[in-house]
Amino acid sequence: MRIVIALGGNALLKRGQTPDAAIQVANVETACRALAPLAREHEIVITHGNGPQVGVLALQSASDPNLTIPYPFDTLGAMTQGMIGYWMLQSLQNNLPGRDVAAIINQTLVMESDPAFDHPTKFVGEVYTEQEAVELTAARGWVMKPDGEHFRRVVGSPRPQRVIETKLIRSMLDDGTVVVCAGGGGIPVVRDEHGNRVGVEAVVDKDLTAAVLAEHLDADLLMILTDVPAVIDGFGTDAARPIHRATPKMLRAMDFPDGSMGPKVEAVCRFVELTGGISAIGRFEDAVQLVAGLAGTVVTPGGDYGGVRDNQVPVTAATNGQKVRA
Amino acid sequence: MRIVIALGGNALLKRGQTPDAAIQVANVETACRALAPLAREHEIVITHGNGPQVGVLALQSASDPNLTIPYPFDTLGAMTQGMIGYWMLQSLQNNLPGRDVAAIINQTLVMESDPAFDHPTKFVGEVYTEQEAVELTAARGWVMKPDGEHFRRVVGSPRPQRVIETKLIRSMLDDGTVVVCAGGGGIPVVRDEHGNRVGVEAVVDKDLTAAVLAEHLDADLLMILTDVPAVIDGFGTDAARPIHRATPKMLRAMDFPDGSMGPKVEAVCRFVELTGGISAIGRFEDAVQLVAGLAGTVVTPGGDYGGVRDNQVPVTAATNGQKVRA
Repeated sequence: MRIVIALGGNALLKRGQTPDAAIQVANVETACRALAPLAREHEIVITHGNGPQVGVLALQSASDPNLTIPYPFDTLGAMTQGMIGYWMLQSLQNNLPGRDVAAIINQTLVMESDPAFDHPTKFVGEVYTEQEAVELTAARGWVMKPDGEHFRRVVGSPRPQRVIETKLIRSMLDDGTVVVCAGGGGIPVVRDEHGNRVGVEAVVDKDLTAAVLAEHLDADLLMILTDVPAVIDGFGTDAARPIHRATPKMLRAMDFPDGSMGPKVEAVCRFVELTGGISAIGRFEDAVQLVAGLAGTVVTPGGDYGGVRDNQVPVTAATNGQKVRA
Repeated sequence: MRIVIALGGNALLKRGQTPDAAIQVANVETACRALAPLAREHEIVITHGNGPQVGVLALQSASDPNLTIPYPFDTLGAMTQGMIGYWMLQSLQNNLPGRDVAAIINQTLVMESDPAFDHPTKFVGEVYTEQEAVELTAARGWVMKPDGEHFRRVVGSPRPQRVIETKLIRSMLDDGTVVVCAGGGGIPVVRDEHGNRVGVEAVVDKDLTAAVLAEHLDADLLMILTDVPAVIDGFGTDAARPIHRATPKMLRAMDFPDGSMGPKVEAVCRFVELTGGISAIGRFEDAVQLVAGLAGTVVTPGGDYGGVRDNQVPVTAATNGQKVRA
């Protein structure tokens, strides 16, 4: 199978951990060891989050007296792609002897007309006083909003339309290379009036980018790996129960929090609806079990999934015994 | 032809410039516009320096109260590969419509037994007082040396042996992709006792890495682009004169400064001696003229070079009319 994996930020840095390189490298090693068995049997693309990492670099950059203007978010995103890409590249190479691994820099195309640019909602960077906020708006055009007692900058989170380097990624996959790409959802760019790509100050949801990438790569399976074992129906209520199998329609009828499970559910539903493929949400430690149909939430057109073991063809109502790339 | 280009740090940030992203992006755009005509006619690999950029990030990281230990140099190098790689990727894509461009993260293998590790000479990061220097040696094992009135950390500059991802780069070149790679000479790694790659605190000379990469990619031409129009014989003396054509033997008989022209001359000599290929040193603005044999210093086995125009075969005593990949 061709599998696109979106690895959550918790696989790189757990809540409360210091963002030291050594701590993140150890976490990356644990995650890559969990994914290595899949890479031995399947074509694998790995994307990853970068929220805490870009936050650390944004603060460093904002306090740097050598800079007139802190690094913009496209540059900061690129830095995290380099840093996390290197850690994953090295760990995957060490865990997959004889296999080629690539970590590449990626841009994600968004639309300048995306309504998210007019209604920015994502808090980024440092906290400021109201006076500082007013000055930053005047000096840099930043949109500032109250966040508790302080003010913080907000940027838009436009819909990812396409990973610019999709053709390159497909070609590497066809050659049997394990590809690490589109970190942090990819560096957001728009096309200007000459058709040129230009970086924008925005945040792209990494799970939605993974879904677009999976669609354009003709992937069989989109796996969203996070720190919960499955999608929970009635989360936070007495009736809470894990969902093991679902159709997009079932999930769309439920309510999920905007900031966390919402975009993941949207991403898996979109991929299954558009491609008829298979999607799964679960813990990265359970990655192999997820593919075998023994853990997590698996979403298919018909809500059924028999699992893939020993690199066989997955059985769902949609594929109905038809050959899936295996 | 297959050309490996090593782009000097001055192409990204000129002396005295503020290291703001916008300033560097404008410089990168100028450099990529100068290189685009070559990329239209030839197979191109571009490596680049990262000295000033890694310096900025090292200081940011050292002053970050959120980190227990500043990011090590392998991680910092990876961050600059992401940042500069993104800027070059975008600019090359915009200047080469219809052409695939890739920017990838690279490690460079060095030997743990390299004598440079026992005699570190490269100053990196912040300045400290003598007392702080003693404490840092005790706490982190850093080797500290006096630098003027202050103390600074020194790391080794081992010989680059191989860019780990050479096979991947060759495959992309074969597909017609313009490849940006091995930024900052590549992230230095050694093999541990299990054969695994592990990052090390070291600095690799980017021109020497470019020479190794050019050799392993079977490149026809290694171009080292910097801020001087040519190698100067008798630099700083009344008899100073630019060298237009040279053999490795001629250059090895001259004296060049260790920190600047020395490694460049070593890199071009090594490439020509090992492969019988062509090497050139000059300004990035003159890149097209260099290939045409009309600017810079061109080094060949026989000290002659007729230039390549309109994608024809270069004529030197060594190739003697034989087919060179064109």
